[in-house]
Amino acid sequence: MNTTSVGDLVQLISRKDRKSFLLILQTDKKLETHYGVIMHLDIIGQPYGSLVYSHLGAEFLVLIPSTSSITHRIKRKSQIIFPKDLGLILLRLSIQPGQEVIEAGTGSGALTLTLARAVGTNGKIYSYDMRADMQKLAEENLRLVGMNKHVDLKTRDISEGFDESDIPAIFLDVPNPWEYLEQVHNSLRNGGFFGALVPTTNQVTKLLEALKQFPFGELEVVEIMLRNYKIAPARLRPSDRMVGHTGYLIFARGLYAML
Amino acid sequence: MNTTSVGDLVQLISRKDRKSFLLILQTDKKLETHYGVIMHLDIIGQPYGSLVYSHLGAEFLVLIPSTSSITHRIKRKSQIIFPKDLGLILLRLSIQPGQEVIEAGTGSGALTLTLARAVGTNGKIYSYDMRADMQKLAEENLRLVGMNKHVDLKTRDISEGFDESDIPAIFLDVPNPWEYLEQVHNSLRNGGFFGALVPTTNQVTKLLEALKQFPFGELEVVEIMLRNYKIAPARLRPSDRMVGHTGYLIFARGLYAML
Amino acid sequence: MNTTSVGDLVQLISRKDRKSFLLILQTDKKLETHYGVIMHLDIIGQPYGSLVYSHLGAEFLVLIPSTSSITHRIKRKSQIIFPKDLGLILLRLSIQPGQEVIEAGTGSGALTLTLARAVGTNGKIYSYDMRADMQKLAEENLRLVGMNKHVDLKTRDISEGFDESDIPAIFLDVPNPWEYLEQVHNSLRNGGFFGALVPTTNQVTKLLEALKQFPFGELEVVEIMLRNYKIAPARLRPSDRMVGHTGYLIFARGLYAML
Amino acid sequence: MNTTSVGDLVQLISRKDRKSFLLILQTDKKLETHYGVIMHLDIIGQPYGSLVYSHLGAEFLVLIPSTSSITHRIKRKSQIIFPKDLGLILLRLSIQPGQEVIEAGTGSGALTLTLARAVGTNGKIYSYDMRADMQKLAEENLRLVGMNKHVDLKTRDISEGFDESDIPAIFLDVPNPWEYLEQVHNSLRNGGFFGALVPTTNQVTKLLEALKQFPFGELEVVEIMLRNYKIAPARLRPSDRMVGHTGYLIFARGLYAML
Repeated sequence: MNTTSVGDLVQLISRKDRKSFLLILQTDKKLETHYGVIMHLDIIGQPYGSLVYSHLGAEFLVLIPSTSSITHRIKRKSQIIFPKDLGLILLRLSIQPGQEVIEAGTGSGALTLTLARAVGTNGKIYSYDMRADMQKLAEENLRLVGMNKHVDLKTRDISEGFDESDIPAIFLDVPNPWEYLEQVHNSLRNGGFFGALVPTTNQVTKLLEALKQFPFGELEVVEIMLRNYKIAPARLRPSDRMVGHTGYLIFARGLYAML
Repeated sequence: MNTTSVGDLVQLISRKDRKSFLLILQTDKKLETHYGVIMHLDIIGQPYGSLVYSHLGAEFLVLIPSTSSITHRIKRKSQIIFPKDLGLILLRLSIQPGQEVIEAGTGSGALTLTLARAVGTNGKIYSYDMRADMQKLAEENLRLVGMNKHVDLKTRDISEGFDESDIPAIFLDVPNPWEYLEQVHNSLRNGGFFGALVPTTNQVTKLLEALKQFPFGELEVVEIMLRNYKIAPARLRPSDRMVGHTGYLIFARGLYAML
Repeated sequence: MNTTSVGDLVQLISRKDRKSFLLILQTDKKLETHYGVIMHLDIIGQPYGSLVYSHLGAEFLVLIPSTSSITHRIKRKSQIIFPKDLGLILLRLSIQPGQEVIEAGTGSGALTLTLARAVGTNGKIYSYDMRADMQKLAEENLRLVGMNKHVDLKTRDISEGFDESDIPAIFLDVPNPWEYLEQVHNSLRNGGFFGALVPTTNQVTKLLEALKQFPFGELEVVEIMLRNYKIAPARLRPSDRMVGHTGYLIFARGLYAML
Repeated sequence: MNTTSVGDLVQLISRKDRKSFLLILQTDKKLETHYGVIMHLDIIGQPYGSLVYSHLGAEFLVLIPSTSSITHRIKRKSQIIFPKDLGLILLRLSIQPGQEVIEAGTGSGALTLTLARAVGTNGKIYSYDMRADMQKLAEENLRLVGMNKHVDLKTRDISEGFDESDIPAIFLDVPNPWEYLEQVHNSLRNGGFFGALVPTTNQVTKLLEALKQFPFGELEVVEIMLRNYKIAPARLRPSDRMVGHTGYLIFARGLYAML
């Protein structure tokens, strides 16, 4: 963990303009920048935190990438969940090291990766998706950050149910979560945490109606808006444009014994 | 963990109205509700997820409380950081199981508790506060959820610096974070994550000015707005009132070698 | 207009703490404040902008109240439309001096009053409401600010249609605006502006569906969030609490010839 | 007003896709669209609300443009004030038909035009700007909508003061409004309304500090966020992107007698 190896995902930050680069170290590759070329071989084996130099002598700092920089730059075939939403999901589902979590669909794996980091290598993520191509992409993304070993990617239609039971947290990022509440019900621990993300108000209405048919408590619907500020201290102001909407987050707690 | 014991913080949910109660189990206590009285002795020793009954026969489900319900209801002597902000802090500081984190001030311990849960029992939180009364309160709050053993509460003025070094993440929730960047600098790992929360724009300006005097990169200033919706599916709408402001979050990454 | 008369609605601002009072001048009334009592007779006949004194010698400035201070403090029996929404309504409906506007329901008259001020005494507002008590309240509120003469309050169920035709702007603030689009259609000028305010997403969906059955163009759905800041220059920050939701505004333009 | 003439600004809406076009009618011009070409001569002299046809037979409806569509599409050399802000400015400054208003700087004339429409032809707008090129542009924009006659554009540095006195409302859209409060003071009616728009928090702080040196009351700082929704009724949701910031609005009331 302290020294870079072949296959590692590393972040380089340029001294000149503090621009950031994410790369997977390979013996035969090079990174081309405005300040010259860096051979991956010059990075491999260096301690994290050390400096490397381009052929023009420009300095670059070698760092471990942050979770959110990774999720933001992973390869995608689908809309990913944003950090503003991921953070609240971790808290509302009460995710802890060593825990099991079920997630569907896997998509490009942004939530999968965040959950995998949060439960750590003693935990386990079961991630379902019908599409084999998405699972393949997610696996690549997870492998990149060494998070693939404790993630079980399952190419499956969740209408057939989940294999696991007594799971403390289940999250659905699918277009029609209201159709799978029975399946969630069968696999969620008594008192377990359920969450879902849907983009439209019509979906929220359908999901709320369905949730009220099952023994769920502590229902909550929220949306989060994040606004970036320009970092000029003497001209402090929000950025001109912002993300207006990602989705509505719905949370509930399974109260099975109360049927 | 599967059966309740004396001293546990448990959550009870009433079957009748799904109202929620947080209590610390003690042999000589009772909980009084609209649906009758429950003796703690009737809860102690029961499996989590089981039902208990009031003297009037009303059913209550016994659950482990979620992190965010705890942070929301811990005893406070100061403004606590809200879940909307806590979630993003976990992600932006790239907090992982087994890791060390420095935090100041401890305050009532809402962030302390959240960090302690996120790093798990193999991790370590060093939490500084000048006020002994705050440290005492935070200790009680942490003990309640069994998170006190891997939190080191230090009653100290951080202008003297932190005892630790090479720490991957440091968070400041103090009125004047710009005064302690040298101290942060000395204890933060190369490439480590720095974060702060301040309520006013004037403080953001001062902190940004100071950050630019030190080798920090990837500066970011954000604010998060969270809006709750009423959960009536046929009359879906945001709540009438919302929290308009908690604070501005400032994040940066220590780039020590680049001075 | 330059000198106060009996029956005028005037605003007094206290010199000491700049607190504001709205009152209707009557010969036999007095205003009681923390800084003493002021007889209405001491105000009546004074020029706007002059000072009056309490029996304790405290100074108060006599002013014409602003439209938004009036709408904020008029007597209410119903939820009023907020200034943040009223302002956009004026612009989107392209309201101008001398123009006619239809509005339903009248409610407590906040929009009525705003429209009446915007079209001026050469314009005309036709305001429909089924409830006679609301019309009575609105009339009182309008009379107070001398805006009653060019407002025609009609106690009527709008399912019967509006009496007027070729009107350039119609606004519906009723629970089920989708039921009256035919009536709107019959009274709106070709190219005229239609607007509505509804509190729930379900109502927005119903109204959009209905609007698509009629020849409307330039459909728009918006919501406005207004955030107040505390006015301490050295501790600039938004207020802790804000209004999270008033309603969704829907605008469209009648394109009758295009059926 | 009911029939189009040469020089009129008209709006055409295509029947096919309801796309909107703004054009100034000229005898020798034509409009090219996806659905064919329309000669201006075929529009000139037609009643507003009537249909015109392209050379391919496609239908277009001829309309008077709305104020906000005009302000949105006027020629610009500078950032214009957005409708969400314009609407609140009209209300907070208590603008009424027949009234006088001072504004500086003129800029591209979006606020000028909005104020000119709101006070009507019996009112008067005095609009100051140092830059002759901006005044020329604003004059063109105003002439286009027939609003130039009651707007007095003055190419002047406002540090020299305004020519007018006893004005009920003054609005500053300049980078350093705090430098002109004395000038505002000299021209604002006792009890008159003052407003300003500035983009940064640092400017808000400076303006608030300055306002407290002068006899202003009812200070208010607000910001407005407007979120558009996609108009698909079965998939109702906010647009993905929105404007994150335009500026902070500061309002106050001149209380001259209270010095």
